[in-house]
Amino acid sequence: MKNKKEIIAGIIIIGNEILSGRTQDTNTSTISVWLNSLGIKVQEVRVIPDIENTIIDTVNDLRKKFNYVFTSGGIGPTHDDITAESISKAFNLNYASHKEAISILEKYYKPGEFTEGRQKMAWMPTEANLILNPTSGAPGFNVENVFCLPGVPSILKSMLGGISHKLVGGEPILSHTINIRTVESEIAKSLSNVQDNNKDVDIGSYPFFRAGKLGVAIVLRSSKQSKIDNCISEIFKFIKEKNIDIVDIG
Amino acid sequence: MKNKKEIIAGIIIIGNEILSGRTQDTNTSTISVWLNSLGIKVQEVRVIPDIENTIIDTVNDLRKKFNYVFTSGGIGPTHDDITAESISKAFNLNYASHKEAISILEKYYKPGEFTEGRQKMAWMPTEANLILNPTSGAPGFNVENVFCLPGVPSILKSMLGGISHKLVGGEPILSHTINIRTVESEIAKSLSNVQDNNKDVDIGSYPFFRAGKLGVAIVLRSSKQSKIDNCISEIFKFIKEKNIDIVDIG
Repeated sequence: MKNKKEIIAGIIIIGNEILSGRTQDTNTSTISVWLNSLGIKVQEVRVIPDIENTIIDTVNDLRKKFNYVFTSGGIGPTHDDITAESISKAFNLNYASHKEAISILEKYYKPGEFTEGRQKMAWMPTEANLILNPTSGAPGFNVENVFCLPGVPSILKSMLGGISHKLVGGEPILSHTINIRTVESEIAKSLSNVQDNNKDVDIGSYPFFRAGKLGVAIVLRSSKQSKIDNCISEIFKFIKEKNIDIVDIG
Repeated sequence: MKNKKEIIAGIIIIGNEILSGRTQDTNTSTISVWLNSLGIKVQEVRVIPDIENTIIDTVNDLRKKFNYVFTSGGIGPTHDDITAESISKAFNLNYASHKEAISILEKYYKPGEFTEGRQKMAWMPTEANLILNPTSGAPGFNVENVFCLPGVPSILKSMLGGISHKLVGGEPILSHTINIRTVESEIAKSLSNVQDNNKDVDIGSYPFFRAGKLGVAIVLRSSKQSKIDNCISEIFKFIKEKNIDIVDIG
């Protein structure tokens, strides 16, 4: 699946609360948009339960398939937080208290408040590199190409800026959207022709309902603006011929 | 992964728009909550791109691991809608115009409006069973234990009621939440003891920020109310001892 021109990533969302439907995952979208801006394309997301063997197998599978893997969830202090121990096992590394993490957390808490429960947040592969957490102290970490982040969306977001310099991206992936007033079947053939003429642009078509009216969003994605522009002019041509209204362009 | 007592399912979200972060997936949560009510537990979700081989491999992998598999996305009329053809290939079935689907769509559209573009929505494995679509006509389908639904959330939702009778579920999974005013590290050890004493209840702990205050949601999941009640009383005991306030119980 690796491709010389593309830098690709996988995301692993760890947590029973997402699988049960109780919590809506928003971290996938946060991580994907951020990676796009670095020229890294997310190729697969897996949501898996808090089961050690499943975490180990999934991490070992994806870290070979993709340039980078990001995990979210399961690095807190409670019994269901088993990501750090599972990652240690996946890489066959020592799972113990990480000196640098201990030192960060000791400074973060008031004297006497760095309890045994909190100390668990410093347990991880002892060889891991830390990912600083400007929001709530407890660091994430990475081992080789696997980056482990917390599940709480606001904390995860605050930590991404501290990782960017560790990643080697490709050309940023540009995206343009044309929203038009039609139904998909009306433009299917013409759009398919545009895709055939422009194989290196990702063209997606998504029906929408907005303000009580039907429409279609055509999304064009490529690292080359000129290629997107070429598609846009071909699309404008058939839109005009078919007398379809444009809602907006973004 | 199959377990006699449990009926388990996998979900495959097909679509570049979710992987790019442009669209936030909500279908996972919709399908999971509905399956829970039927006593079926979602064990894995995969988000994959519109690439034929990836769809085929993922479907063939998950349909062996789980009792049921649900796919969402890629069954519309445009060039990027390749789910139906990929499913045909995964099962080695004939991909062609489905008689019953044609007859439904012919009735749905006004005379002359059932265009070539729309006819593509009737292409699927010819042996598939249809899943009726009360919202927009175009049916979904199932082959054996794989159920293919559209990606548009409102349409997907409207189709679930028509599938329930095709599924054999287990005991409905009950869920209770206790929201308390504390931090995870404060209760980690006590909660871990409760989990050790009640191995057949799924106990999750999730920090939250609400109205500017920190808290922890403890979520208990089991098919047996009496087992949940037992956990609740053990949790109430340590909450009282630690003098922790309860925010609410649900």
